[in-house]
Amino acid sequence: MEDINLHFTGDIHAVTAANNLIAAMMDAHIFHGNELDIDPGHVNFARCMDMNDRQLRALVDGLGGPKNGVPRQDEFVISAASEVMAILAMTEGVKDLKERLRRILIAFNRKGGPVWAKQLRADGACAILLKDALMPNLVQTLEGTPAFVHGGPFGNIAHGHNSILSDRLALGSTDVVFTEAGFASDLGAEKFVHLVCRQSGYAPNAAVLVTTVRAMKHHGGVKEKAIKEENLKALKAGFPNLDAHVGILKTLGITPIVAVNRFVADTQREIDTLVEHAQDLGVRAAPHRGYADGGKGGAELAQLVLEAANRAPASLRFVYKADDPFEEKVAKLATSIYGADGVDFVNSAKEDMKLMEKAGVADLPVCVAKTQMSLSDDDRALGAPKGWTLKIRGVRASSGAGYLVALAGEMMRMPGLGAEPAAVHMDIDEKGVIKGLF
Amino acid sequence: MEDINLHFTGDIHAVTAANNLIAAMMDAHIFHGNELDIDPGHVNFARCMDMNDRQLRALVDGLGGPKNGVPRQDEFVISAASEVMAILAMTEGVKDLKERLRRILIAFNRKGGPVWAKQLRADGACAILLKDALMPNLVQTLEGTPAFVHGGPFGNIAHGHNSILSDRLALGSTDVVFTEAGFASDLGAEKFVHLVCRQSGYAPNAAVLVTTVRAMKHHGGVKEKAIKEENLKALKAGFPNLDAHVGILKTLGITPIVAVNRFVADTQREIDTLVEHAQDLGVRAAPHRGYADGGKGGAELAQLVLEAANRAPASLRFVYKADDPFEEKVAKLATSIYGADGVDFVNSAKEDMKLMEKAGVADLPVCVAKTQMSLSDDDRALGAPKGWTLKIRGVRASSGAGYLVALAGEMMRMPGLGAEPAAVHMDIDEKGVIKGLF
Amino acid sequence: MEDINLHFTGDIHAVTAANNLIAAMMDAHIFHGNELDIDPGHVNFARCMDMNDRQLRALVDGLGGPKNGVPRQDEFVISAASEVMAILAMTEGVKDLKERLRRILIAFNRKGGPVWAKQLRADGACAILLKDALMPNLVQTLEGTPAFVHGGPFGNIAHGHNSILSDRLALGSTDVVFTEAGFASDLGAEKFVHLVCRQSGYAPNAAVLVTTVRAMKHHGGVKEKAIKEENLKALKAGFPNLDAHVGILKTLGITPIVAVNRFVADTQREIDTLVEHAQDLGVRAAPHRGYADGGKGGAELAQLVLEAANRAPASLRFVYKADDPFEEKVAKLATSIYGADGVDFVNSAKEDMKLMEKAGVADLPVCVAKTQMSLSDDDRALGAPKGWTLKIRGVRASSGAGYLVALAGEMMRMPGLGAEPAAVHMDIDEKGVIKGLF
Amino acid sequence: MEDINLHFTGDIHAVTAANNLIAAMMDAHIFHGNELDIDPGHVNFARCMDMNDRQLRALVDGLGGPKNGVPRQDEFVISAASEVMAILAMTEGVKDLKERLRRILIAFNRKGGPVWAKQLRADGACAILLKDALMPNLVQTLEGTPAFVHGGPFGNIAHGHNSILSDRLALGSTDVVFTEAGFASDLGAEKFVHLVCRQSGYAPNAAVLVTTVRAMKHHGGVKEKAIKEENLKALKAGFPNLDAHVGILKTLGITPIVAVNRFVADTQREIDTLVEHAQDLGVRAAPHRGYADGGKGGAELAQLVLEAANRAPASLRFVYKADDPFEEKVAKLATSIYGADGVDFVNSAKEDMKLMEKAGVADLPVCVAKTQMSLSDDDRALGAPKGWTLKIRGVRASSGAGYLVALAGEMMRMPGLGAEPAAVHMDIDEKGVIKGLF
Repeated sequence: MEDINLHFTGDIHAVTAANNLIAAMMDAHIFHGNELDIDPGHVNFARCMDMNDRQLRALVDGLGGPKNGVPRQDEFVISAASEVMAILAMTEGVKDLKERLRRILIAFNRKGGPVWAKQLRADGACAILLKDALMPNLVQTLEGTPAFVHGGPFGNIAHGHNSILSDRLALGSTDVVFTEAGFASDLGAEKFVHLVCRQSGYAPNAAVLVTTVRAMKHHGGVKEKAIKEENLKALKAGFPNLDAHVGILKTLGITPIVAVNRFVADTQREIDTLVEHAQDLGVRAAPHRGYADGGKGGAELAQLVLEAANRAPASLRFVYKADDPFEEKVAKLATSIYGADGVDFVNSAKEDMKLMEKAGVADLPVCVAKTQMSLSDDDRALGAPKGWTLKIRGVRASSGAGYLVALAGEMMRMPGLGAEPAAVHMDIDEKGVIKGLF
Repeated sequence: MEDINLHFTGDIHAVTAANNLIAAMMDAHIFHGNELDIDPGHVNFARCMDMNDRQLRALVDGLGGPKNGVPRQDEFVISAASEVMAILAMTEGVKDLKERLRRILIAFNRKGGPVWAKQLRADGACAILLKDALMPNLVQTLEGTPAFVHGGPFGNIAHGHNSILSDRLALGSTDVVFTEAGFASDLGAEKFVHLVCRQSGYAPNAAVLVTTVRAMKHHGGVKEKAIKEENLKALKAGFPNLDAHVGILKTLGITPIVAVNRFVADTQREIDTLVEHAQDLGVRAAPHRGYADGGKGGAELAQLVLEAANRAPASLRFVYKADDPFEEKVAKLATSIYGADGVDFVNSAKEDMKLMEKAGVADLPVCVAKTQMSLSDDDRALGAPKGWTLKIRGVRASSGAGYLVALAGEMMRMPGLGAEPAAVHMDIDEKGVIKGLF
Repeated sequence: MEDINLHFTGDIHAVTAANNLIAAMMDAHIFHGNELDIDPGHVNFARCMDMNDRQLRALVDGLGGPKNGVPRQDEFVISAASEVMAILAMTEGVKDLKERLRRILIAFNRKGGPVWAKQLRADGACAILLKDALMPNLVQTLEGTPAFVHGGPFGNIAHGHNSILSDRLALGSTDVVFTEAGFASDLGAEKFVHLVCRQSGYAPNAAVLVTTVRAMKHHGGVKEKAIKEENLKALKAGFPNLDAHVGILKTLGITPIVAVNRFVADTQREIDTLVEHAQDLGVRAAPHRGYADGGKGGAELAQLVLEAANRAPASLRFVYKADDPFEEKVAKLATSIYGADGVDFVNSAKEDMKLMEKAGVADLPVCVAKTQMSLSDDDRALGAPKGWTLKIRGVRASSGAGYLVALAGEMMRMPGLGAEPAAVHMDIDEKGVIKGLF
Repeated sequence: MEDINLHFTGDIHAVTAANNLIAAMMDAHIFHGNELDIDPGHVNFARCMDMNDRQLRALVDGLGGPKNGVPRQDEFVISAASEVMAILAMTEGVKDLKERLRRILIAFNRKGGPVWAKQLRADGACAILLKDALMPNLVQTLEGTPAFVHGGPFGNIAHGHNSILSDRLALGSTDVVFTEAGFASDLGAEKFVHLVCRQSGYAPNAAVLVTTVRAMKHHGGVKEKAIKEENLKALKAGFPNLDAHVGILKTLGITPIVAVNRFVADTQREIDTLVEHAQDLGVRAAPHRGYADGGKGGAELAQLVLEAANRAPASLRFVYKADDPFEEKVAKLATSIYGADGVDFVNSAKEDMKLMEKAGVADLPVCVAKTQMSLSDDDRALGAPKGWTLKIRGVRASSGAGYLVALAGEMMRMPGLGAEPAAVHMDIDEKGVIKGLF
């Protein structure tokens, strides 16, 4: 079971290898005469590593003299934020995969024009590296329920959904499919609708909005230390956050069901207060104990979900049109989804967009890289922040995946390890028994 | 079959992940207050990537302001040159693996003292990441012969031998074991003897020294373009190189058998001349067509090898003693193996050794990182170069693997892609058929 | 006469040398054990060069191995933006100079506390290097009028006024003193009032606001190419810029006189229209031809200035109080002087201010580094921009000079050379005749 | 008097400014489209600063994004090692100055061809900046003897002689001219002969070889602490160093006179032993007390020098011919002057020379940058080292000055400050009295 947290079937490693092959070929091209006239100051494609490694966020590589490449400012992103990971999750098959790999915008030339991965002829080799990773991985739960685990673009820094291929396989094999749209409604659900559903043509009949008593209290201002103490006042103070997420799902045309994931320290009064609040909003809601009791612990909730899903499917509503200008797309997300007053595109983002227009990718849909800690772009702003402006500091093309990444606030695409990384508590004994992984 | 050239069982990826976890934990430690007082200017441990990526040979990372780590000069090596790969190949089991991981010398502190991986408590998590990679991979040849493929430390930049675990498994399962000691007698064979045999206690009964007509002509001064033309004079001019390798094996106390790997363009006169020259040296020799004809094509050669191996085993002779000072170890290799007049330790290597002494690792055996293109440290020097001095420009500890790496000449531990990387010719079609891999 | 544009009396070189001595001593201190625990990631003091050299705006120095210093991100500013230049202009004498040098905030230590230049004991040597530069330079105009040329902190990136010492000398020697407050009323005049007058105690009786027909047309939207053509409509369209500057002087409690600096291409109608507009604002105004005709060409204007100055001196009005919090000081400048709606302190500026508070320098007056091309922080915004927010991206202490530098918009403290630097047209012949300097 | 140690007449500042103008123009050229196709990885020209600042020895500049220049590895040298300083000392006048400035080899283009300063059109502006510095500075000693102080290329890292212009002025104005050839006979005297005399055509009649008792004892192995104690044995042990210097002067065809600079702690026996040793070599020798007693203290010595000079002038002997290949020039210096067995040109030096050949400057005379602490390239090797090989690690063109700089051993062209820089003991009081400068 721990394999899913380790190398699993090696998909992430394959994504990392394919992604970094493109980068290595680009820099080798620059080194060997740079026939494509790539501007080392305007590279759009990052190396990746499957590691929380802040030391690699910003670097100057190609140092050490003329034999070692060409000095340039560079960056690594975590593999989950790499463009190849996004491509793996968005692709429809081998042929499409190769086309997407070809249309990766790797850099701009010195005249400001685009340079594509196909010009490096990297697509074939990358597709070979991804040939096994392309196949969805079928696993089963502890109770034997089948599940696909395939693709890992994080919802904060990428589009947050497992692969379209695995969705399609599931939709073709069973009556009811649950799929995950990572990191709450402002990130995962919004991106699922505008990026995944719009491309694939399928749509959800309902959405399970997961919340907890402690999340509400957190948004109500309670500190970590006191989070286990009953506090109805703080619980209620956190409701605006839940209300906002419910509102986002409705805005997107999806019926929400609120799932209250019970923790041992939650009191019955807290659970009841939270469930009742959701019902007051006109939304089905139920607590569940799935983690503790397995399928049985979620039976009541599952019933509610099935009821909702069996009604006539809500028709999706897109917040922005495919042909809205980029700035308008972001503005509509900012005001209709995040609750911002507007958007501030800093100069560097404006300059990025000029290049995107010249490259002909300015009209792609948008994937905002934004903190998952807040509805706003400031991870310290709790509840449902009002009176703020979304700051877009830069734009990167993921034209192979099929969208532009708007970098909001100070969201990093490469996390860092804490002062005491989880790894220090992990061990394996001589018999192969692992501890510390969960 | 191409899987061996792709991700195979994922061992290299696991090695890469484990190696880079240690580096990320070290830099996170420096970032979070640096309790161990690690000197960022004296780091001994490199990140790795399984890619020919010269852009990563020398870099400054930790840039971008105080939230992004601490600026320092850094390097990536290819995964085959990483210390964790060497550890995987040298280890005797899980317990030993963890001990080796703990004694990796990651850096020096500001007082010049050693900082070990165990102080980061990285060993448990790394061992978990390596738990499957630790198991030798059993494959079969096209004719059904069983073979282990396990461990990949290149012989030029690392110690060049597959894992001791797989050797032991093979020795316990069959009558005759062929193992590979990467990159000729001056690198692979020497390291196999001094590092692998000395630690493991087993020893070879004979050694197959592979050569080709075109290799001899290359060492005789023929250029790539004319290599397919019969040229007995150049062939003979290349013999000193073969003689030197035969001499090295004898110096190491191993009986050599010369295997002449036939190519289509080789003429019978060339083959005969080469075989006869080897026999004149008093060495068994035979041509073979293993690549073209499979096992059958190597039958005559195999017979010679078995004959040699069935004689009383030669007793290994170590060129240096375990307790020779480091400088003497290198000097003995330089003069007895490489044919150099002596060794020039440049100042940086001398300073490295002062730190190694302070860390208590100065008496480890030595693994020279040296070009495989020449017996000397200059990859343009053909034949059996005389009148030259081995230049050691630096020393890195691989104390987990159990040796010191002496960096000779300008040998890089991170290769680079050529102007037209092999990858541009690779492709996969919609049915999954791969081309261009071989 | 060209000497003023060349090395003059060497004051700028002396400032550069003194400034860079402090920086070299700081980095040598870090290198030699760093007893003060200076955090290389939080340095507050920059090296300088008297050159437009964008290549030095952002760099990583201390590279090349442990003998060459400690790698850190660093910057050069132009000498006119250096703290020592500001100190030279603000100081009251040798004793005060040394005190100011001592209280330069060079960096923060790893605990976030301040590190001062006095801890490096750099003040004595710096004062020696500045001993001659400290003495105001008395020159004369082509007509023999005495003038002091002393100190050169640019008004956009520094405080924009010549030395207080030279002002005092002039005030003690003559009936009427004209002094320069560099770069328009939003920069030079504002800083003269809040920084120079507030410290020194002296105040101007009137201010000459220099404008030109072509400046008004530029702010009215005319491009460079058409600037010499008569265009009354555009001229009038540019008046809001003049109005704003007049308003700023009145806000500061200073009587403005508008001086219209005539160019050959200006038409009489343009001149008249501009002068009349100024008079309509209730302000004295006159054209002048000082550059073409010398003192005679400015006689009418001079008369107006003397009249104004002989009236009862206007009492200065400070826009912010000395004990206003930093954010309020900047906000008052933004709204009362620049015409902004408010201020956006980006996160890095907020973090800078936390360090300033800890260092006890948060209550110093403020010197905004802002473009001189616009009243706003965007050098492309003409006229009198409305509906914008001042962006402060960072704060640096110039505690020796006695103020905090707020970095507004994208204002750089190190300019760059153009595609065809003025230097390419300069020459000197064998007789020492210089050409191309003007 | 301290002015000579401070800014003096500003010559060094002018040199610094002119030098850095060329560098700034080069980088601005690269930034603005790089029409000359300058290869940022093959720059031959360094910025300089008149400061011991090791932090600037190796850096990456041009960082901070596409508006801030082009990232490249760069270096600062101390102004005394700058090419413009060398040009100032070698030039014959304004016209020649401009020609030399034009033929500075600033970089190589991407095809390996030379790029000259004249292509940047920087020569006119630089010559203007140097117009006053070009004029020799006439000062007088405490006793009123006239002296020129002009030009400052250090003898270890540059050619070590004051300006040819000042030599010519002196030769035209007086009967006897003493000139200085910085840093002993292996550096200053050798370079004076091969670079200055060969170009200018004048030649010395004799050479004063300055030594001290303590220098001999140092070369005899005495440590700093014990240097003041009488030690005849160590004194004699140091004689081989003196002998070598005497030999070098004779090899160069110059008559040496040994001047023993007396220190207070020297005993008469030590002085006598040293003087007698010199006389045993057949060389005139005398002690002197010039520092303590002024001209009077050196009268005996002066008499010896005049006697020697009045004899028929020795004819200079050049150790290498102007048309010897570069490698041979260096080899002849190594063996005939330094006492080395030979030269080791490391690969980077060989590659530098290929570029120099392509640029047509390979046949210039050579100026070795070598430590002044030893006759060898290792500053710890005392006496007259034997059995060593000169290591040349790189070559830089100073084609404007008229020579190639061969970088020997680990000689740095940018020194660093010590743990307690002399500056910390300097001060100036309110009356302008300086202390701590000497």
